[in-house]
Amino acid sequence: MAFTHFDQEGNAVMVDVTEKADTVREALASGTIKLNQEAFEAVANGTTKKGDVLSVAATAGIMGAKKTAGLIPMCHILPITNCKVWFELDPKQREVHCFCTVKITGKTGVEMEALTGASVALLTIYDMCKAMDKSMEIGGIRLKRKTGGRSGEIVNP
Amino acid sequence: MAFTHFDQEGNAVMVDVTEKADTVREALASGTIKLNQEAFEAVANGTTKKGDVLSVAATAGIMGAKKTAGLIPMCHILPITNCKVWFELDPKQREVHCFCTVKITGKTGVEMEALTGASVALLTIYDMCKAMDKSMEIGGIRLKRKTGGRSGEIVNP
Amino acid sequence: MAFTHFDQEGNAVMVDVTEKADTVREALASGTIKLNQEAFEAVANGTTKKGDVLSVAATAGIMGAKKTAGLIPMCHILPITNCKVWFELDPKQREVHCFCTVKITGKTGVEMEALTGASVALLTIYDMCKAMDKSMEIGGIRLKRKTGGRSGEIVNP
Amino acid sequence: MAFTHFDQEGNAVMVDVTEKADTVREALASGTIKLNQEAFEAVANGTTKKGDVLSVAATAGIMGAKKTAGLIPMCHILPITNCKVWFELDPKQREVHCFCTVKITGKTGVEMEALTGASVALLTIYDMCKAMDKSMEIGGIRLKRKTGGRSGEIVNP
Amino acid sequence: MAFTHFDQEGNAVMVDVTEKADTVREALASGTIKLNQEAFEAVANGTTKKGDVLSVAATAGIMGAKKTAGLIPMCHILPITNCKVWFELDPKQREVHCFCTVKITGKTGVEMEALTGASVALLTIYDMCKAMDKSMEIGGIRLKRKTGGRSGEIVNP
Amino acid sequence: MAFTHFDQEGNAVMVDVTEKADTVREALASGTIKLNQEAFEAVANGTTKKGDVLSVAATAGIMGAKKTAGLIPMCHILPITNCKVWFELDPKQREVHCFCTVKITGKTGVEMEALTGASVALLTIYDMCKAMDKSMEIGGIRLKRKTGGRSGEIVNP
Repeated sequence: MAFTHFDQEGNAVMVDVTEKADTVREALASGTIKLNQEAFEAVANGTTKKGDVLSVAATAGIMGAKKTAGLIPMCHILPITNCKVWFELDPKQREVHCFCTVKITGKTGVEMEALTGASVALLTIYDMCKAMDKSMEIGGIRLKRKTGGRSGEIVNP
Repeated sequence: MAFTHFDQEGNAVMVDVTEKADTVREALASGTIKLNQEAFEAVANGTTKKGDVLSVAATAGIMGAKKTAGLIPMCHILPITNCKVWFELDPKQREVHCFCTVKITGKTGVEMEALTGASVALLTIYDMCKAMDKSMEIGGIRLKRKTGGRSGEIVNP
Repeated sequence: MAFTHFDQEGNAVMVDVTEKADTVREALASGTIKLNQEAFEAVANGTTKKGDVLSVAATAGIMGAKKTAGLIPMCHILPITNCKVWFELDPKQREVHCFCTVKITGKTGVEMEALTGASVALLTIYDMCKAMDKSMEIGGIRLKRKTGGRSGEIVNP
Repeated sequence: MAFTHFDQEGNAVMVDVTEKADTVREALASGTIKLNQEAFEAVANGTTKKGDVLSVAATAGIMGAKKTAGLIPMCHILPITNCKVWFELDPKQREVHCFCTVKITGKTGVEMEALTGASVALLTIYDMCKAMDKSMEIGGIRLKRKTGGRSGEIVNP
Repeated sequence: MAFTHFDQEGNAVMVDVTEKADTVREALASGTIKLNQEAFEAVANGTTKKGDVLSVAATAGIMGAKKTAGLIPMCHILPITNCKVWFELDPKQREVHCFCTVKITGKTGVEMEALTGASVALLTIYDMCKAMDKSMEIGGIRLKRKTGGRSGEIVNP
Repeated sequence: MAFTHFDQEGNAVMVDVTEKADTVREALASGTIKLNQEAFEAVANGTTKKGDVLSVAATAGIMGAKKTAGLIPMCHILPITNCKVWFELDPKQREVHCFCTVKITGKTGVEMEALTGASVALLTIYDMCKAMDKSMEIGGIRLKRKTGGRSGEIVNP
């Protein structure tokens, strides 16, 4: 199987979706940031008190999802119809799990938008915690579920 | 220790660096994407033949590093003086390791630029391989080294 | 009545318009900047002679309307089909009134685009006059009329 | 007095600040949005409970301030060193007052950044309340105080 | 014949395409950069060895085409469905010819996107060769072919 | 002589200017668009009557120069201190000549900014005239003069 993002001469190309039908498509991506105890507690407390890191990160994630076509060279400009970013905290592992779901009625899927939204949200948490923790790590950025389009449903458990 | 990104009333703020000295600062970030056999081989072959995924990803990573202040809400606009993105392939693990180094003579560090550059480069690889592999995972995004500024050298082995 | 921009857990979300029909929608917004005598005359003269502040401001307003989704976190990316910015001068009050109309065939309204276009146009006038007048004020930014979509026609006299 | 933003032939120009000294400069801008009772209460409650409109608006305002040079044609690209957006609520008038302060060590002032930050924050409140109130009005956008640079301190009481 | 980009009062406007039908449209633009011998050889060798200028330029061209509406004031935001940038080398003339094709199913043509893509790709070659050649020239930027829409096929031989 | 934009392994890199001194630098670029009789007259008349194409194009050119680092992958983010775009009309050749000058006190030159400013201004003229002339051509985009920095003055007559 060849790359769909290169033509026969090896030129990188945007995949041609001109003739594809507009269908409802949805993608859910996730990722995780691991923090030290001090930073994790600061983030966790921020969700109930003033100084809400996760609210800033969710806003950044949604705005980041909308910027996907400006960041990823071969991504199409997609007028997405829905985006949501949310978090789950795992105090035992000192991890913040980020989820980003994106929807569209369009000709191509939105997994890159969901992955970009999650990545930007996690980088925003990193930025706001980096005075407290110099060794954070972001990982587990992956597609969890994708529906719509020719390839049908994809689930990564 | 409190967040530097919130004031006493809990308002999110850009950290005030007005009075800080301009010094040479450098940051190196890394991250990894794990691919299936088919996608890994296509990427690996692309580096010697036509269809070079990694060249597109490096370009996207450098452009992404320059967009950091537009993506991460509290990041300063930083006229970075150097940026480089490169890759190492691990065929046994089917992993592409991405490295991004950023430099500046400025008032604040550039780790967010390096982390963003690496993230965008890895997302670009994901995008160009997603027709071949629906289960890729991006991880290990972290700061490896940082020099310059008040906090001195930071090394995460 | 609850916010449409938050889900039940309080996460800020882009409103889901995936299932809405594409209909013709139009919005007209307006706003005003009040200038001192010197600045007002310079702007007024500029519309007939060289040095046309209002031409620059109209261009900035149209470009600003197109940037709405990049500025307002929960706004959808909307491929607007028409945008126009124009001005009326009130010499007695030394005010420049700005009007911005935006149209689309789409799933959601374009009032934010019209309001953003008017705001950016007025800020541009401010910028170009600020050497002459240090006490300008921008106000009266509001939706004047909106048609199309489920909520039908809205008129603010 | 002539426009500084036009040359002698009437061409719009960015003002030449090449030879100006780098000095510390600061600007504080403000503006107001007037809401109906339902929307005002929803915003006011959101500041203590889930669904925090003002946190989203502050984030958007800071990001908007950083985009000033991309919005206002003749504005310089300014690597601002500090930005903060905050709000005061006036329940009697059902008004939200927005304040935006910006700082830089640079060759030109940052009042446009402060005014743009306040404008974008207020437009964000508008966007998130527009399902509840179709007749909001944004006004009173003005410079309150400016220090640094050749023109010294400016105060608009 | 009058400008379609101005209304009867002389205000610059985005052309209203609200009522136009969505049809498949395509545009091909081209342009050329002339280099000195040293720079031309470096570019030509780069396409088979390491240091591939043309790969970076093609990536930049595709990303540039997507930014058209942010660059050209009266251009519509167009969710283009395909973009490809490629090059032909003329060693005798020491010229690199650039081609950019863009497609959409939409209400208006994409020639500006194709022309912008070609221009940005050529400027990228200029940037990467400017240490070797201080006298490069970019020219011949024009529409070669355009199909779809009311004006039918246009061919510039 | 090797590319400065690639390292020894062939990775595209932003040239490292961290250690370079801040000096005053200036660049002047030019370019030309050739129009048919109808379009040329419309543009020429627009400069004295309503409907001023060249005012819109100059605004777009200045804004385009500020976007250079976002368009050209290896260009540095440069807080330029001056930009001006202007035009000369040649009725005999039916040509509009565009000039763009950019200045900075910085570590690297601004020729790419001047060339990008001229290119965007000319593309804007193309856009606004394309209903009248389907065969326009943009050419002659080149650096006319450059001062400051290590390479001293460069003049292309």
